[in-house]
Amino acid sequence: MTPLERVRVVVDCMGGDHGPSVTLPACKEFLATHPQADLVLVGMADAIAPAASWPRCTLVPSTEIVSMDDPVEVALRRKKDSSMRVAINQLKPDANGRAMGDVAVSAGNTGALMAISRYVLKTVEGIDRPAIASVIPNERPGFTTMLDLGANVDCTAEHLLQFAVMGSALVSALEGTAEPSVGLLNIGAEAIKGSETIKQAGELLRAAANAGQLNYHGNVEGNDIFNGTVDIVVCDGFVGNVALKTSEGLAHMLTGFLRAEFKRHWMAKVAALVALPVLKHFRKRFDPRGYNGAALLGLQGLVFKSHGSADAFSFGRALARAYDAARNRLPEQVHERIVETLQAAALPPNDEPVRPAA
Amino acid sequence: MTPLERVRVVVDCMGGDHGPSVTLPACKEFLATHPQADLVLVGMADAIAPAASWPRCTLVPSTEIVSMDDPVEVALRRKKDSSMRVAINQLKPDANGRAMGDVAVSAGNTGALMAISRYVLKTVEGIDRPAIASVIPNERPGFTTMLDLGANVDCTAEHLLQFAVMGSALVSALEGTAEPSVGLLNIGAEAIKGSETIKQAGELLRAAANAGQLNYHGNVEGNDIFNGTVDIVVCDGFVGNVALKTSEGLAHMLTGFLRAEFKRHWMAKVAALVALPVLKHFRKRFDPRGYNGAALLGLQGLVFKSHGSADAFSFGRALARAYDAARNRLPEQVHERIVETLQAAALPPNDEPVRPAA
Repeated sequence: MTPLERVRVVVDCMGGDHGPSVTLPACKEFLATHPQADLVLVGMADAIAPAASWPRCTLVPSTEIVSMDDPVEVALRRKKDSSMRVAINQLKPDANGRAMGDVAVSAGNTGALMAISRYVLKTVEGIDRPAIASVIPNERPGFTTMLDLGANVDCTAEHLLQFAVMGSALVSALEGTAEPSVGLLNIGAEAIKGSETIKQAGELLRAAANAGQLNYHGNVEGNDIFNGTVDIVVCDGFVGNVALKTSEGLAHMLTGFLRAEFKRHWMAKVAALVALPVLKHFRKRFDPRGYNGAALLGLQGLVFKSHGSADAFSFGRALARAYDAARNRLPEQVHERIVETLQAAALPPNDEPVRPAA
Repeated sequence: MTPLERVRVVVDCMGGDHGPSVTLPACKEFLATHPQADLVLVGMADAIAPAASWPRCTLVPSTEIVSMDDPVEVALRRKKDSSMRVAINQLKPDANGRAMGDVAVSAGNTGALMAISRYVLKTVEGIDRPAIASVIPNERPGFTTMLDLGANVDCTAEHLLQFAVMGSALVSALEGTAEPSVGLLNIGAEAIKGSETIKQAGELLRAAANAGQLNYHGNVEGNDIFNGTVDIVVCDGFVGNVALKTSEGLAHMLTGFLRAEFKRHWMAKVAALVALPVLKHFRKRFDPRGYNGAALLGLQGLVFKSHGSADAFSFGRALARAYDAARNRLPEQVHERIVETLQAAALPPNDEPVRPAA
């Protein structure tokens, strides 16, 4: 597919812990570095007014804000003129099939963003549930894409197959990898391992691979996320959330411990001074600010989620990822791959049952 | 309960990556530091012969070895005279109700050890599936006990309740904490989060807490494992395995990165030299060798599993944990707690349904 010539990025300027004080500087910088981008800035009229004079910018005022701890119900049913809702609305095609934006970015409340996006945009045909995909630095060194991180619990084997297909489209669009490898998160490398759902998912993924639709590596284990064994790790939203939060907890404990150790006595303080460049590089390599921007996949419209605590640099990274994904036509790629996979699944090769007996 | 006066520890001397070259020195050291312990050493006659002259030692020869990659079936059905099997046999009471040992320790193949233990010893009444509990260092600083890490997939809410009860008995026996706190691993703190099974498990745990059987904290998330929010984290074996392996992968990546960084150029090498004591303390604090010894819980007999790669120091730690657990009558504590919880569950307070509507 030829890339889009111009990309219109819609920004929920009020989202996140810091709102416009972070999103606006990031947008200004983004405009300067992305001459093929146009921005649609959504937010309280006063808050976004400073951008009125910026080039390639459309301002869309809204009168409400979804707070970081608003329940999903409140965000969805009661705040219909929130910056988040209005931003997502910009992705909806009008009667002529034209939308105001190609991709939307928000640092707001994840649950609300997912619910509003799903309600306003609906899922792509062939996708039951949208998923959230994020990247995690690995040892290769590089990044492992992981999904679902969007709280899809009680997933079926078919959902996991859909996640694999969407993840493949994402990595192709963002990294240019034609056939990214997919691993199914399990508790052992052997195909007989895992729950019934996981075993069925393994069969579906193998069938899709046999039909040429997927570069399926097989089962992977938790440590493979960081080993970089595969480009994409697929799991249900429960397991994905636990793996991610566990990693965050461990990283927090280890860095906290190192910091405390280096402060313990004067020898250690000297050591810390000398070790500073090393630790700085360490922090830079694993700083989640550098790889901010999770994709909401499977919707009829492209939405990216920034960390709520993002600073301007980090929010800018999310804008850039969203821009790249839209420019490389990620939604069309997801759609195309899903259609092909479903067609292939409907006509499985005779020697390879797509659905195992229940 | 009064502690046992003497504790008979059965050792599978052939298990693990290194066999007798690790287990025998660990046993010798253990005997020296534990005057109230007697050892039953099981292994190939030649291999355990050096221990013939040791005090407080009984040698039990066996003719086979379960290798680290033997399939469970082979270990269970074909190697009936393996050191692992013979070691577990020592825990079985004879016609007079007397067993040869109070606890068995093996560094062998986990799957085989679990299968053989379950086959030979059977589960305690009221326990459907044995679980494996391990400890993980936390920020408090202290240790979080986590279970199941024994590959129990597709767990029901009742299984998770049983894990919580067994984990509580373990921590009471090993740490002396009367009412250790229990968290249910979930994807959010609110009770409405998670899969159906998790929500049901939450209700069972709350009911057990209301009946005074459990110190239930509520839901915890992945990061709480390392925060030390609770003494015990309960989850199914799939999630537990993923969380543990993910942590191992991250720790491996981070230490590998630090090592590489400190080798990169001469400045960093100097820094490494100065930072050495700090990094050494760091390694010591998080060295899994220091907290080796996972408990197999819910069996009519007490079994501990050492890491396969354990060295003599580390295997000694597993022996010491096994000794402490047996001395503090862990099996009786598990049994007592399970009986009480089941009785309480059968008579729930009227305002607190034990089983949610399906």
